[in-house]
Amino acid sequence: MGLTPSLERLASHFASLPSIGRKSAVRLAYHVLSMDEKDVQAFADSLVEAKKNTRLCTVCQCFSETEICPRCGDPGRDASVLMCVEDHRSLEAIEALHEFRGQYHVLHGVLSPMDGIGPEQLKIKELLARLDGNVKEVIIATNPSVEGEATAMYLGRLLKPLGVKVTRLAYGLPVGGILEFADDTTLLKAIEGRTEV
Amino acid sequence: MGLTPSLERLASHFASLPSIGRKSAVRLAYHVLSMDEKDVQAFADSLVEAKKNTRLCTVCQCFSETEICPRCGDPGRDASVLMCVEDHRSLEAIEALHEFRGQYHVLHGVLSPMDGIGPEQLKIKELLARLDGNVKEVIIATNPSVEGEATAMYLGRLLKPLGVKVTRLAYGLPVGGILEFADDTTLLKAIEGRTEV
Repeated sequence: MGLTPSLERLASHFASLPSIGRKSAVRLAYHVLSMDEKDVQAFADSLVEAKKNTRLCTVCQCFSETEICPRCGDPGRDASVLMCVEDHRSLEAIEALHEFRGQYHVLHGVLSPMDGIGPEQLKIKELLARLDGNVKEVIIATNPSVEGEATAMYLGRLLKPLGVKVTRLAYGLPVGGILEFADDTTLLKAIEGRTEV
Repeated sequence: MGLTPSLERLASHFASLPSIGRKSAVRLAYHVLSMDEKDVQAFADSLVEAKKNTRLCTVCQCFSETEICPRCGDPGRDASVLMCVEDHRSLEAIEALHEFRGQYHVLHGVLSPMDGIGPEQLKIKELLARLDGNVKEVIIATNPSVEGEATAMYLGRLLKPLGVKVTRLAYGLPVGGILEFADDTTLLKAIEGRTEV
């Protein structure tokens, strides 16, 4: 027989999440039974509320609970530099460095014609709307993948004629890596991008 | 800054589940934002309902949505043999063999004085109540751990005077294993428990 109907429903919801397999999902469902009823209710409420309260910041398109996110509303950040990222994970990784003090723009993906993702599916219109003359530089920080690269080239061609400086994160050897183990493309890019010492 | 307050709450609920770390929890929270609102609501409802609808079968103490679980209510199963397991994972593992046609009894743990778990914390009273003369054999299928073994010995001493046959799952070499790699205790048990060919 197996799980009771309501445990089965719960387990299949867990299993629909990324990187949670059937066995883990069943274990999580059993774990929920061992939780206090009020904690289960709080978990359920947090699901619904996270979905309900979260919208996109009208400026940078990051997830926000307010119309304009705290970062975009922060006058201490330099609005003349926009760091253009694929998604929130990239944004958080850069933000965690505590070094970049400009503003962000979240594209919500990269160009991928195979998956039917063209410029209209990304937040490019919203990016163009921000280029009001105050923005001096757009740093393109898409992932170093084929799609990330294609998106960077597309944005470069689109933005340069507007008189804004467009830069791309540097390719090269990862710090602490071993030259011998670097892949060919990375090594070539490191030679191409060599800097004077 | 990091996550919005409601995403932070959701991520911390995910992170409180077993084997989900902080990074996975954040990824799951972002995933929830990409789900349809009705799926998020269904997930939330399934949490609350699984907790609310699930109780213990009054006979075998397994999780059930009815007072007596479908297994205990099944007249096709042999009520004279009780397989006594630690938890539901053990029960499901044995049930998945489709070989055992007796009844179960779930102890909900094993004796562990260090963790304050004595006989009163386990479903032993409920096990004794089932020994009404119709039960001929109790198979003790606790895990082959120190606590599982201690629990098996305790139950053996408790049940034997009541005139019921008490057995324990066999120890020995795992099928497909290599003798040379078996640990000492397993190998000793395999020699002790040798059978005639």
